[in-house]
Amino acid sequence: MSLRSFDELRAACNDIKAGDDEAARAALARQDVLTKPQGSLGRLEEIAAWLARWQGRAMPKLDKVQVIVFAGSHGVTAQGVSAFPAEVTHQMVANFAAGGAAINQLSKVAGADLSVVPLEVERPTGDFTREAAMGEADFLAAVSAGYDAVEADADLACFGEMGIGNTTAAAALAVAFFGGETARWVGRGTGVDDAGLKRKVTAIEKGLALHAQALGDPLKTAAALGGRELAAIMGATLAARHRNVPVLLDGFVCTAAVAPLQRLRPEGLAHVLAAHCSAEAGHRGLLEALGLNPLFDLGMRLGEGSGACLAINVVRSALACHAGMASFAEAGVSEG
Amino acid sequence: MSLRSFDELRAACNDIKAGDDEAARAALARQDVLTKPQGSLGRLEEIAAWLARWQGRAMPKLDKVQVIVFAGSHGVTAQGVSAFPAEVTHQMVANFAAGGAAINQLSKVAGADLSVVPLEVERPTGDFTREAAMGEADFLAAVSAGYDAVEADADLACFGEMGIGNTTAAAALAVAFFGGETARWVGRGTGVDDAGLKRKVTAIEKGLALHAQALGDPLKTAAALGGRELAAIMGATLAARHRNVPVLLDGFVCTAAVAPLQRLRPEGLAHVLAAHCSAEAGHRGLLEALGLNPLFDLGMRLGEGSGACLAINVVRSALACHAGMASFAEAGVSEG
Repeated sequence: MSLRSFDELRAACNDIKAGDDEAARAALARQDVLTKPQGSLGRLEEIAAWLARWQGRAMPKLDKVQVIVFAGSHGVTAQGVSAFPAEVTHQMVANFAAGGAAINQLSKVAGADLSVVPLEVERPTGDFTREAAMGEADFLAAVSAGYDAVEADADLACFGEMGIGNTTAAAALAVAFFGGETARWVGRGTGVDDAGLKRKVTAIEKGLALHAQALGDPLKTAAALGGRELAAIMGATLAARHRNVPVLLDGFVCTAAVAPLQRLRPEGLAHVLAAHCSAEAGHRGLLEALGLNPLFDLGMRLGEGSGACLAINVVRSALACHAGMASFAEAGVSEG
Repeated sequence: MSLRSFDELRAACNDIKAGDDEAARAALARQDVLTKPQGSLGRLEEIAAWLARWQGRAMPKLDKVQVIVFAGSHGVTAQGVSAFPAEVTHQMVANFAAGGAAINQLSKVAGADLSVVPLEVERPTGDFTREAAMGEADFLAAVSAGYDAVEADADLACFGEMGIGNTTAAAALAVAFFGGETARWVGRGTGVDDAGLKRKVTAIEKGLALHAQALGDPLKTAAALGGRELAAIMGATLAARHRNVPVLLDGFVCTAAVAPLQRLRPEGLAHVLAAHCSAEAGHRGLLEALGLNPLFDLGMRLGEGSGACLAINVVRSALACHAGMASFAEAGVSEG
């Protein structure tokens, strides 16, 4: 995708279609004749209909599942907001390549294709307490990289992130979009102590004051306070909408990253299913603000797309029941 | 297993060992050096240690995962306690054999070996409002069948049930073991209406009055009010403890079925991990009464072991991270 301006991107974010009601209705009608009490598969039935709606077919498929991890470096780490040194972002990209990270193992169990997209990891974004994290061109390049990473024949996608400092960027976006006490949105990330938590709050409040003029515009806000991997996740989630690819949403950083799509269009995240509620402090509130109901809460707070990836087999299970179960008539089972 | 008396079974239930502390400690120590912030995989870390403790090895395996569905027929269906006719139990056993039920699809996605054990489905238990559901020999035969179904080389097991009327039997056991208002434990099962709910409460209160003398003894209670598939699940869960096989626990019926093991020995269910909280009304309370914290709540209420089976890939994911991730030292990643 080639984007020349915030306005072009805004137009692309507004150019989205509703899901396929007919496919979803057909899927739910099928669920009602399968050999089980109606509704007894709970959210698995909802998932089957969700796949149908956003793939645009009553019998969905999951032949190709993409997991894409975007990595970026953050100037705001200069403010002492992370428990880990900034170079860990680069080291973890190498760990992904070598197959040693959690997401490598999780995507194998999920039968998903993992790819890692480093976004100028050697060139950190600006420190948002002093300048915009990204200028317009820089931001649009990251959005485009995310957009282009989603393959048109994918049946389901999960996006993850790696970027020391990025829970601070995500919390800044949450405050900008949803307001309230800054501390409400600030968590320990990889594990900062109380002093680190205070430095996060201070940095965010400085950033919000400095970029007050951008805050009326979700895209300018994302450029000023976000990060390249967050911008890419927004772009990828938009591409998924354009390409009929349902999306499983990961944790706090990913949720903040996609929030602009909902701020621009209330139904901008309708193709997104929240996989889990992270242990990062602000995530539950962020999901609630976006009207998203997570599938599970296992106290995870790793990022990398780990929570979303864990949900892939739940989605596979939902589809397996949908596609493989016999109907009452086929099995000769009496109905209630 | 050949059991001649309640006393012999009671002795077997008391003859259990603690888990392998050393293996669990070694697993947790390994988790702390893997390339992630400590604790950031949340309950996946706990699961790795649980597998280690109950398999008795610091590096657990999941080569053979058993899913066993036990089926039984219930005399108490004469009291109008189910939305489906009693013959559905038999029809569903045929559906399992033909591969058309939910559990067939779910165990395939989970990479598990499914077996179905019908327990004299053509001969319903006694109607517990009029007589004991099972006499001593009948009950012990079902427990033994369950015990024998667990293979010694299994690495993980899920037990499920099919039996029209069995949420009434399970609720009767819950009242007997944990007290309180009968209505608290009674749910809609496969989908009874309000009148059906009242019939369930009436039947249970009649049964409790009739079998008052059995209620001091968990095994006699299970014989008087339970069912063959519930007895088999208790037997299978005991066998798993004796054979170092960790167990994923399914929904309301399964939880009531294994409760006697905890009533006989407070640590009798320590090798059991609750997979999910079912939508059946009494399940959350039953899990709380047993001190079990379920992995997820997806509004499922199908039985068949479906919720437990869905958790198998969560356990596989936990083990994949445990076994496959690089340590900080191996990957050259800086620690926090």
